[in-house]
Amino acid sequence: MLYITRKEHFNAAHRLFRPEYSDEENLRIFGKCSNPNWHGHNYTIYITVKGNVNEKTGFVIDLKILSQIINEKVIEIVDHKNINLEVPFMEGKLASTENLAIGIWYQLEEEIKNQGAFLHCVRLEETENNIAEYFGE
Amino acid sequence: MLYITRKEHFNAAHRLFRPEYSDEENLRIFGKCSNPNWHGHNYTIYITVKGNVNEKTGFVIDLKILSQIINEKVIEIVDHKNINLEVPFMEGKLASTENLAIGIWYQLEEEIKNQGAFLHCVRLEETENNIAEYFGE
Amino acid sequence: MLYITRKEHFNAAHRLFRPEYSDEENLRIFGKCSNPNWHGHNYTIYITVKGNVNEKTGFVIDLKILSQIINEKVIEIVDHKNINLEVPFMEGKLASTENLAIGIWYQLEEEIKNQGAFLHCVRLEETENNIAEYFGE
Amino acid sequence: MLYITRKEHFNAAHRLFRPEYSDEENLRIFGKCSNPNWHGHNYTIYITVKGNVNEKTGFVIDLKILSQIINEKVIEIVDHKNINLEVPFMEGKLASTENLAIGIWYQLEEEIKNQGAFLHCVRLEETENNIAEYFGE
Amino acid sequence: MLYITRKEHFNAAHRLFRPEYSDEENLRIFGKCSNPNWHGHNYTIYITVKGNVNEKTGFVIDLKILSQIINEKVIEIVDHKNINLEVPFMEGKLASTENLAIGIWYQLEEEIKNQGAFLHCVRLEETENNIAEYFGE
Amino acid sequence: MLYITRKEHFNAAHRLFRPEYSDEENLRIFGKCSNPNWHGHNYTIYITVKGNVNEKTGFVIDLKILSQIINEKVIEIVDHKNINLEVPFMEGKLASTENLAIGIWYQLEEEIKNQGAFLHCVRLEETENNIAEYFGE
Repeated sequence: MLYITRKEHFNAAHRLFRPEYSDEENLRIFGKCSNPNWHGHNYTIYITVKGNVNEKTGFVIDLKILSQIINEKVIEIVDHKNINLEVPFMEGKLASTENLAIGIWYQLEEEIKNQGAFLHCVRLEETENNIAEYFGE
Repeated sequence: MLYITRKEHFNAAHRLFRPEYSDEENLRIFGKCSNPNWHGHNYTIYITVKGNVNEKTGFVIDLKILSQIINEKVIEIVDHKNINLEVPFMEGKLASTENLAIGIWYQLEEEIKNQGAFLHCVRLEETENNIAEYFGE
Repeated sequence: MLYITRKEHFNAAHRLFRPEYSDEENLRIFGKCSNPNWHGHNYTIYITVKGNVNEKTGFVIDLKILSQIINEKVIEIVDHKNINLEVPFMEGKLASTENLAIGIWYQLEEEIKNQGAFLHCVRLEETENNIAEYFGE
Repeated sequence: MLYITRKEHFNAAHRLFRPEYSDEENLRIFGKCSNPNWHGHNYTIYITVKGNVNEKTGFVIDLKILSQIINEKVIEIVDHKNINLEVPFMEGKLASTENLAIGIWYQLEEEIKNQGAFLHCVRLEETENNIAEYFGE
Repeated sequence: MLYITRKEHFNAAHRLFRPEYSDEENLRIFGKCSNPNWHGHNYTIYITVKGNVNEKTGFVIDLKILSQIINEKVIEIVDHKNINLEVPFMEGKLASTENLAIGIWYQLEEEIKNQGAFLHCVRLEETENNIAEYFGE
Repeated sequence: MLYITRKEHFNAAHRLFRPEYSDEENLRIFGKCSNPNWHGHNYTIYITVKGNVNEKTGFVIDLKILSQIINEKVIEIVDHKNINLEVPFMEGKLASTENLAIGIWYQLEEEIKNQGAFLHCVRLEETENNIAEYFGE
């Protein structure tokens, strides 16, 4: 069993708020992250996959294929987008780092299984100081 | 003559576009950076000040004071904001890294001179790959 | 179950030595880290908390509150201090990265539980090359 | 139980290929990583060791000794070398990051046990984007 | 006048040696960098361009175009290659970081001028510890 | 003319204060940096040397020799030391980053000239946020 990780990037706008609350209530709960005109981040994701090393290739998973999967299922959907308004897999959810990490997990889990390996961890860094990790359970 | 640099951070949303152009025209010129629903970045700024070392303090400028100036004149105005809509010193300008670096220069130049030192460089990193530097001329 | 991490910094002086040994004996065991006139580091800590995502806020723990806890219970006590002489929770202990990581754990564990989440890991980087991690067991 | 990590570096050349395949077949499977004239990397390794904190020294393992072990058993053997041609512990294996991480594990496991601690993880970064981790099982 | 920088990466093999010298002589002058079986690096380049900010676009140079130029004229030629054997613009030159930085300058200078801006600096990092900068004079 | 930079590290303790002032006065001017029991940093230095590329070696200066000079003239004198009490070239000076950068310049200037190259810049990072640069004038 070996763990292999691919790092990718995207930039996006978001806002932490609940539409059923007033701006004042959102400000009280979410602080400046609730700014109605949005703010944004350079997000970094680390996708960790586990599996056995294929004797023929020396790979757990071909990292070019893993990178393609991450790009098709995540980056193209979130990069230079507004997470609250434009990302289907975040519809109806608070656009927190936690929920985004969970959403990314479900975008990737099946595709990686199809490659004969297992998604182990989605690590999402909103800034270098704020990091969420989801292990699927 | 010694150069002293202070690094600070802010997060913001922006969009590259000209209001007099159509969305298609903006997309052609600015690519995905013109997304009408905004995107955003973790911006890093490095403010470099030059001057003589004060014999009494060993400082070119007290870095606590430099940090306060940068926070009051820049960070509080741009952090968790929409650069196109909410930043007075960017009003009427394209929200490019280049123009933002120049705008930050004029926010800081006078205040630093009041401390007996000289602003030398504003270095603004939009991502780790895209960096603008302005030296005031 | 989701894991959320907050990164913070502090600077401190320390010395590795046992008072009951001679300077020569300390030098033999601890090398240049035993220098009687102290040396110091820019320490980086990563505090990882685990818990369920609160449906109302989208958070495991409010990172502003986590940052406040870390600052009150750790940073204000160790920052710009001498770890051997001035940090109550290190009294009577060798000022090693290992012991400091364990000491930080016990400063934080209870406060984080009071927020409805669980301290999972204290990661303490003394330099970028030397890193200790404590998981509470 | 505490985990302590030491980071080290080496530079090496390698090539992904199987000698029984043609250059075309290798290119199809391994892409540009199969370039017959080699390419190379600045590899970073993080060696994590677990154990109890020694009351006398405050250490799980003396990091100077851990660094010496890593240097003698790994760095001196791979640094500024061709992994396919010159590294005995990689003989007959595909020079993938995965296999290299496993090979490094077996170079270190016994020596660390002799110091009264246990090798927990070999983390090998081929680039900042491609990372393998092996936990010995 | 504003300075804009784009960061890019490539991986390559190289060897420091002069063919007219013996392996022993090369070893004496170039140390382990002369290993006949090659070694390699993850090179990082920072290309800095200067010019006026275009009023229409807010750009000194479109960074997508700058990135394309760097990729066509440099990255595609050196990435996953052997600098001594496979890079036409390094033919007959010692494959030192210094010479590689100068070679990259001449690959880019003209193309950037065609975009209405001026190449200001090629910064080439062989490792995070060894860095060459060339300003064209 | 080409510029070549070598990065090195050291850890040290220091205190900002003037012995002729009271602790209260030092606290007012230097803040927590005046703590009488010291604090410390992981300092990073970048030494930039300029010169012509030697045709025989492809080097401005042999980086192994530059690294040796920096280690002998700077690192061995300051590493794991107390800058106020134990560093001869800082005697009688305030232990600020500015003065330390200037002190390092004069430790290196002559030795580098003896190698046929010229010291161009001493960049001293006290933390990732606070940086001093001295160009010798």
